[in-house]
Amino acid sequence: MGGNIFGQIFRISTFGESHGPAIGVIIDGCPPGYSIDPDLIQKDLDRRRPGQSAIVTQRKEPDQVEILSGIFEGRTTGTPIAMVIHNADQKSKDYSHIKDQFRPSHADFTYQAKYGIRDYRGGGRSSARETAARVAAGAIAKQILARSGIETYAYTSQVGTVEIPPNTPIDRDVIERNPVRCADATTALAMESLIRDIRKQGDTIGGVVTGVILGCPAGLGEPVFDKLHADLGKAMLSINACKGFEYGSGFAGIALKGSEHNDLFEQLDGKVITTTNRSGGIQGGISNGMDIYFRCAFKPVATIMQDQASIDKSGQPVTVSGKGRHDPCVVPRAVPIVEAMAALVILDHLLRQQMIMATMG
Amino acid sequence: MGGNIFGQIFRISTFGESHGPAIGVIIDGCPPGYSIDPDLIQKDLDRRRPGQSAIVTQRKEPDQVEILSGIFEGRTTGTPIAMVIHNADQKSKDYSHIKDQFRPSHADFTYQAKYGIRDYRGGGRSSARETAARVAAGAIAKQILARSGIETYAYTSQVGTVEIPPNTPIDRDVIERNPVRCADATTALAMESLIRDIRKQGDTIGGVVTGVILGCPAGLGEPVFDKLHADLGKAMLSINACKGFEYGSGFAGIALKGSEHNDLFEQLDGKVITTTNRSGGIQGGISNGMDIYFRCAFKPVATIMQDQASIDKSGQPVTVSGKGRHDPCVVPRAVPIVEAMAALVILDHLLRQQMIMATMG
Amino acid sequence: MGGNIFGQIFRISTFGESHGPAIGVIIDGCPPGYSIDPDLIQKDLDRRRPGQSAIVTQRKEPDQVEILSGIFEGRTTGTPIAMVIHNADQKSKDYSHIKDQFRPSHADFTYQAKYGIRDYRGGGRSSARETAARVAAGAIAKQILARSGIETYAYTSQVGTVEIPPNTPIDRDVIERNPVRCADATTALAMESLIRDIRKQGDTIGGVVTGVILGCPAGLGEPVFDKLHADLGKAMLSINACKGFEYGSGFAGIALKGSEHNDLFEQLDGKVITTTNRSGGIQGGISNGMDIYFRCAFKPVATIMQDQASIDKSGQPVTVSGKGRHDPCVVPRAVPIVEAMAALVILDHLLRQQMIMATMG
Amino acid sequence: MGGNIFGQIFRISTFGESHGPAIGVIIDGCPPGYSIDPDLIQKDLDRRRPGQSAIVTQRKEPDQVEILSGIFEGRTTGTPIAMVIHNADQKSKDYSHIKDQFRPSHADFTYQAKYGIRDYRGGGRSSARETAARVAAGAIAKQILARSGIETYAYTSQVGTVEIPPNTPIDRDVIERNPVRCADATTALAMESLIRDIRKQGDTIGGVVTGVILGCPAGLGEPVFDKLHADLGKAMLSINACKGFEYGSGFAGIALKGSEHNDLFEQLDGKVITTTNRSGGIQGGISNGMDIYFRCAFKPVATIMQDQASIDKSGQPVTVSGKGRHDPCVVPRAVPIVEAMAALVILDHLLRQQMIMATMG
Repeated sequence: MGGNIFGQIFRISTFGESHGPAIGVIIDGCPPGYSIDPDLIQKDLDRRRPGQSAIVTQRKEPDQVEILSGIFEGRTTGTPIAMVIHNADQKSKDYSHIKDQFRPSHADFTYQAKYGIRDYRGGGRSSARETAARVAAGAIAKQILARSGIETYAYTSQVGTVEIPPNTPIDRDVIERNPVRCADATTALAMESLIRDIRKQGDTIGGVVTGVILGCPAGLGEPVFDKLHADLGKAMLSINACKGFEYGSGFAGIALKGSEHNDLFEQLDGKVITTTNRSGGIQGGISNGMDIYFRCAFKPVATIMQDQASIDKSGQPVTVSGKGRHDPCVVPRAVPIVEAMAALVILDHLLRQQMIMATMG
Repeated sequence: MGGNIFGQIFRISTFGESHGPAIGVIIDGCPPGYSIDPDLIQKDLDRRRPGQSAIVTQRKEPDQVEILSGIFEGRTTGTPIAMVIHNADQKSKDYSHIKDQFRPSHADFTYQAKYGIRDYRGGGRSSARETAARVAAGAIAKQILARSGIETYAYTSQVGTVEIPPNTPIDRDVIERNPVRCADATTALAMESLIRDIRKQGDTIGGVVTGVILGCPAGLGEPVFDKLHADLGKAMLSINACKGFEYGSGFAGIALKGSEHNDLFEQLDGKVITTTNRSGGIQGGISNGMDIYFRCAFKPVATIMQDQASIDKSGQPVTVSGKGRHDPCVVPRAVPIVEAMAALVILDHLLRQQMIMATMG
Repeated sequence: MGGNIFGQIFRISTFGESHGPAIGVIIDGCPPGYSIDPDLIQKDLDRRRPGQSAIVTQRKEPDQVEILSGIFEGRTTGTPIAMVIHNADQKSKDYSHIKDQFRPSHADFTYQAKYGIRDYRGGGRSSARETAARVAAGAIAKQILARSGIETYAYTSQVGTVEIPPNTPIDRDVIERNPVRCADATTALAMESLIRDIRKQGDTIGGVVTGVILGCPAGLGEPVFDKLHADLGKAMLSINACKGFEYGSGFAGIALKGSEHNDLFEQLDGKVITTTNRSGGIQGGISNGMDIYFRCAFKPVATIMQDQASIDKSGQPVTVSGKGRHDPCVVPRAVPIVEAMAALVILDHLLRQQMIMATMG
Repeated sequence: MGGNIFGQIFRISTFGESHGPAIGVIIDGCPPGYSIDPDLIQKDLDRRRPGQSAIVTQRKEPDQVEILSGIFEGRTTGTPIAMVIHNADQKSKDYSHIKDQFRPSHADFTYQAKYGIRDYRGGGRSSARETAARVAAGAIAKQILARSGIETYAYTSQVGTVEIPPNTPIDRDVIERNPVRCADATTALAMESLIRDIRKQGDTIGGVVTGVILGCPAGLGEPVFDKLHADLGKAMLSINACKGFEYGSGFAGIALKGSEHNDLFEQLDGKVITTTNRSGGIQGGISNGMDIYFRCAFKPVATIMQDQASIDKSGQPVTVSGKGRHDPCVVPRAVPIVEAMAALVILDHLLRQQMIMATMG
């Protein structure tokens, strides 16, 4: 009910404020017997953490994860897995200047309206710092999915108006070789250049992260409400700054006729496939065994290094001054978050479907 | 877990197949003491039902709702409200020709893959007929929301490439006066004409439904996972044929800079407002008191009146022949479904927030 | 949240008032592919229904079940199973005399205090009539459990102070051959005689139902909160008039020493067993493969055929007069309800555990 | 699904093994704005912790709680409250001798059967050490309940066959003045003496904890499944070693007639009361405003200081030798756990009911 729990079987509870002692997560419902490599968790956290490159915020946070339970002699035991990340940089800043201010397009006002109280330091719970806990949980989900041959990955496909040109072949190896996490090296340069320009202006810019799930078997997703793409959509929209979600043909599919849009079935080497994949790997809310792909729209970050007019708690006009560290574009750091959320959704639905398979009459 | 339950407090369970005896819904958690007008439930069902105009499927279904419990002497009692709609047209057709076929871009294959068995008559549970139960529940939610001054409405904003021109003033009165449910009379004519053409071709076309929520107080939505727009997104994406969701500036916001995108706060007549509303009424996942608006992309209906190549259960090539009744465009009938799902989400979150307000220290 | 939903995977939602049009249930999460015999559902309903013998209430209710969805060509499809039982006797009585009265030890006052409104006809939702929906759902659960070799049964072990003597061998065949559903023929006669005496006095009497689960594999139950016996306890305590629950040695185990109480493990024919079973088949909240047994205490029915002092809604003293039909002892009709609730809990946990077995690394 | 989450609104997730790095809890759904005194949390933990008196286990654990989130400037913020208790004594012991053994009436065998793997050190997750996390969460619930005038307390009412004589007045002040936590000073001495004797024998003994809730308003509890006493029952039965639960007249009520058992209503000073309270403050699953009381049966602790026959993982006979530290009777330390679980259930239902009150039409 409090909104900090996600998933039905592989269920995560996250906690923590941007400038409190720590953030973290409990996973309840992790299947037993899986070997977990803590380095892979740390690696994903490193992909999300601040200070990783010149085009992201320079907050100093090592984001070192500590596992407190649920893993014994290297393997999951079926009991809750708790992970904690202590906030290193929690006391470095004076937040009294924004204590009573409502920063434009931040959650200051809405948290105040909702709870009547808020931890104003760095956005408190509304900070994207919270997503580190998701990345840690997602890194465990990824390792379990890998055992079933399922992979999730994501990449930056658009920054501002700079996008990967249509029909460009996607090169997964390129993604981690550029700070934007674009899947095309040429576009990556243009994106990085744009972000640097935007930063110089003290401004920010939006972008798109494309997510892909490979190796997903047919049968995942529970009609009618927990359709696979509906749960993916909720997962992505729950990420800070995400404003839109589409899968398969998405919004572009609107203009097509049914005769153009339908994917035809074939049998290939004993496996049912479709000759096209406008369905994005999901039909009737259930995976059909083809690749799943989707796109997430991220708005420009609300924190800008410019003065903005606003009001304070008493309704009086104030000037909000941008200062300190910020992300000129959220998208490069959003990539591992999108992957993590996709992994959490897919694993949860895989477990749900494996139960159905195991128990059918 | 089965995926047929939606909502946390105002929780609905739906049931029923397209050609079984009945479909229906139980609402658990409806607050007590509300007068409910059954005619308003029927009115919304009539807006969704087949045969309502020349541009929708001509299946004969009166969709007459029967209330079995939870309302006593005209008022809700706090106990479960069960509603049933008997299928009138359930036996009129022979479905043996599609018994073993997988229709392109339908859920035949995925249901078979998931459950190993399926009710193939008219799509069974995967039929959009199921949404009638949502509309019935949503009609009760709307009546309760009205008591708090909250209204949800929706309209067709695009069919194929025909869309309401930018900056056209929205006239709510126009919506129910044209069979497309477009909010602009001139565009409505063009849309209707397009749908008639498409139908003549034995084809189908996609579209966009825009949803609006008026009068929503600040404070609704639960960070971090149950953000208001994340739950709206899941709700809309769970509607048959929905392929994308965006709110506020949505995908278009990507190209803006933060300085262009941020909404500035002002106090007006003692109420906090924003001078623009690119946030779509939601900031940090919580409503801010401004109008909430969002857009849902619907793909072209998969059932077309043309022959298509496919395979059957044994993997053999077959020709799927289109015949009988179908919707050339799902959007006109999707409008009341979008409204219903919006009402269900908003009421659920209103109850969640009213609890917080009632219990804060 | 509304409290009318039970179970995690095999999840039931019930609805209906004693004198409304109908009661019923939706099962969401029933595994697909199981043949279901509707006669077995009806048979269990007949064991619960009024008028079945001279020692139960004579209300006329055939309790005929109608299946509305989820079963196709005799087999479960994995989609929701809805069942409805129409109330035949709903209009036969004038309830205006109790409209504003609070009957002693009934739920009239508490429903009024909770909801501010109540359907006063025959107790409305608080009537034990609601349990028919549980029995119908439980009858499906039993059929699925039978496929895994698991059986639930129950019997009356005590009425007032008449109880089956210690160490009496339990004869399952005897249970349905006497109207009390006692597992010992001699004791059954004494119980029946007591109930007839009590009825002549216009009074009521309590009793104990013992429940047994045979064939349950080791591994069911989820620590730490959803321990198998904790969920069984909640299930039984949720039955009208149930005031206590104990399993294994129960309250009697208090007086034993650990050295007397511990069950020793042995291996027998390759299977781990315990030489005694004071644990009642459950250790650490998880089934150990031995028989599960438990006892449920039922208080005397609150409706008596005597005048009682009480108050009305305005706090004024009134005399509540007993009249009409009533059960002198709830226990005979509670037996199939206990079985049904046990089957629902065990099946739910079986599915949970089968998922773990199917997904472990 | 994993079973480590409890509650609907005030929802706790616990984690941790007996000999892992830490145990802890996240509370999601704590209402905002409450001042929380950390000393009161620690005080309850001190009442539960090992080593507190001569009649409990001498394991050295300070059980120092650390709050990681959700409380800002001393008040709850509505965001998740995480609390961690590091295990001080985690490495002090060699557990290799029980690595492959199944200790009688412990959860060693059932965890192995369920998960195929287990942390055997000190029982791992099955250790009652886990309940410290519940006590910490319960201590916060108690502080919030106090603001509504609701108090929960518990006491030892029976150890072995030594019980507080009937009609003995309960003196709450006595409870914390004796190591047994008995509410009667004379009986306390007899109980303590019995426990010392039992310990000398290297044996253990069971007991009863009585729980009481004062000041609970009418209206708490959600029919039909989430009846207040059903949720209390599940909560208590989920505590390690609890074998039975009864409320109000409980098992003793069986032998009464309805005319003897019914509680008559009266109005006193404008408040509805009952002249007797065999209902234990709950009617139809909903609180009626009278005191709530219940009794929990605890079996003798399974760990005894005697040799016992058992088997190991391969089914071979072994001798399990008792050594080290143990509780001769769990009841004194169970008292704060019963209180905590009662507070968690009552607060959860209070929030549920306050929502209904705040939203009724």
